[in-house]
Amino acid sequence: MRPATIQYHDRPKPTVDLLDQTRLPHEHVRLHCQTVASLHDAIKRLVVRGAPAIGVAAAYGVLLASHPDDADRSLSQAKSDYLKAIETLASSRPTAVNLFWALDRMRRIVEQDSATDARSLHDALLHEARRIDEEDQRMCDQIGQLGAARLRPYHRILTHCNAGSLATAGSGTALAPLYQLHREGHQLTVIADETRPLLQGARLTAWELSKAGLDVHVCTDSMAASLMQLGQIDAVIVGADRIAANGDAANKIGTYAIAIAARYHRLPFFVAAPTSTLDQSLQSGEAIPIEQRDGKEVSHPIAGQPSITPEGVATINPAFDVTPANLITALITERKVIEPPSTDAIAALMNGDAQR
Amino acid sequence: MRPATIQYHDRPKPTVDLLDQTRLPHEHVRLHCQTVASLHDAIKRLVVRGAPAIGVAAAYGVLLASHPDDADRSLSQAKSDYLKAIETLASSRPTAVNLFWALDRMRRIVEQDSATDARSLHDALLHEARRIDEEDQRMCDQIGQLGAARLRPYHRILTHCNAGSLATAGSGTALAPLYQLHREGHQLTVIADETRPLLQGARLTAWELSKAGLDVHVCTDSMAASLMQLGQIDAVIVGADRIAANGDAANKIGTYAIAIAARYHRLPFFVAAPTSTLDQSLQSGEAIPIEQRDGKEVSHPIAGQPSITPEGVATINPAFDVTPANLITALITERKVIEPPSTDAIAALMNGDAQR
Repeated sequence: MRPATIQYHDRPKPTVDLLDQTRLPHEHVRLHCQTVASLHDAIKRLVVRGAPAIGVAAAYGVLLASHPDDADRSLSQAKSDYLKAIETLASSRPTAVNLFWALDRMRRIVEQDSATDARSLHDALLHEARRIDEEDQRMCDQIGQLGAARLRPYHRILTHCNAGSLATAGSGTALAPLYQLHREGHQLTVIADETRPLLQGARLTAWELSKAGLDVHVCTDSMAASLMQLGQIDAVIVGADRIAANGDAANKIGTYAIAIAARYHRLPFFVAAPTSTLDQSLQSGEAIPIEQRDGKEVSHPIAGQPSITPEGVATINPAFDVTPANLITALITERKVIEPPSTDAIAALMNGDAQR
Repeated sequence: MRPATIQYHDRPKPTVDLLDQTRLPHEHVRLHCQTVASLHDAIKRLVVRGAPAIGVAAAYGVLLASHPDDADRSLSQAKSDYLKAIETLASSRPTAVNLFWALDRMRRIVEQDSATDARSLHDALLHEARRIDEEDQRMCDQIGQLGAARLRPYHRILTHCNAGSLATAGSGTALAPLYQLHREGHQLTVIADETRPLLQGARLTAWELSKAGLDVHVCTDSMAASLMQLGQIDAVIVGADRIAANGDAANKIGTYAIAIAARYHRLPFFVAAPTSTLDQSLQSGEAIPIEQRDGKEVSHPIAGQPSITPEGVATINPAFDVTPANLITALITERKVIEPPSTDAIAALMNGDAQR
């Protein structure tokens, strides 16, 4: 039932096969990327989006630098081609750390694998990409389990943007606990912020949740605080694109405003993300690079239609904002619910990881 | 230079002549309402909007119940026709109190005026409507003066929705101080929230401010808090549709979220409104009726285009929210800046009014 957000076909020709999310909910079109450049463009245009999904797509994307017949290619040439692909894909989007995390894993295979020829290097890379994909699916399930246990006291849950099956290779991050609660028969109403400018909440979250039979309502981003004031929201859960060592979390623009409103109304505010979203190299959220996107995404909400702003008026379009850790009730990862998030608690989790 | 938001022509046929705000910024079309029903529809559809402008339009609208030749009509018939018009117009929108305030003034003329025939009653009503119009213009200027004095320490000012010349018969409420500061050569950048669902900020505020030469930038509603976090906003000013006796203010949906964010960042949050927006009959904001509008305004941001939501997903669409007085730094009226707003301070202002 889950939409096939990302598929990879190695034959007859390496292809990253994406559900084109820019055309949902009304058109279900798949985009077949067979070159690194086309996948780079697809990530940039948000054909595939969501931090974990970007990581998985990019991992498979490295394989687009394979040759149809690797017998023709020397091992050193193949390595050089793959590294170039990794470099290209890494420049597609700056904020989601999962992109760099996944590409770093692929780079390690190129640099360290004991492959003796181009074909066996290809096989090792494909193996690693499939692992990243499968791990992501498993992480989603684990976040779903841990998150559902934590969210069980709540029935009316607000989410922002899309951190569901369309944003991951599995059932999602923020939405995974909601799918799990729904499967358990928990009474649940989801309020999806529409998420301007690109409407991922209205287009994507509403689509995947309603398709799965969940009760979902869409509101504008500006309504969330008012719904809290009226007692119509019990809790908030969102995903993240990058989380600094202290727990500050970058997520879709608008997340921060909701976190402030949740705090003002004493509502719990949860961030769900796999540990691959944790960036231990950044001390705090201020260091997270925030992607500035084309102002036309604000002024032209529907492609091909006139702008909503007058001629010559500038628009502002940061794609993300940073919610400080002190506004986050708990960080729900695939291994542990960190409540409250702190530098020490995150370091302990990640060091545990390093010691495995 | 100011757009002719509302004009009234008594001859050859009573006509309320409106700039159609649903078609701005790209189309400049005027709608000529010659029946009470057509004006009722125009107010409901937001051809004319903004609390003070609705009041002025409705006042003139009563005259649409005049007969071309009032010699044909008895005084009692004319009174009955006017009262029916008042009743119809009062049902157009429920939240903005200026509508009821203006119609009450017109009703008092019908009920108390010493007119001896239909023609002289018409003349008395026209006189009252013109007074309401002129008073509104004067109120805007006074709010402009008082507001500019209060806002002078600030340079980067956020506003939400449109409380400018398109929302009043004059230079606006929230925008009047900004026009005044601009005339004084004050360095000013205005950040206009786009104001979903109907985009009055992107379409109307950006239009009228940029036409007047002010520096204006549009952001999505979800960006305001993040801009505050980044230190890019110094103060917020908005209008109001109804203010309860204790200072709680109903305004366009999304205002409340901004007020919370402003408080969180210790930024001043101003509400500018004429005293006609004060409703002493309501103790607090909880009693203000909130208009629920068609969910299609959320799901169909551009008329004639497909919905942004999947089939069958419900949308929520309250047109207003209520900001509690304790989040409002000051209430800027045409007579006084009430800082902070309180039941006592408002009562003192209004009683002073009653004693005039």
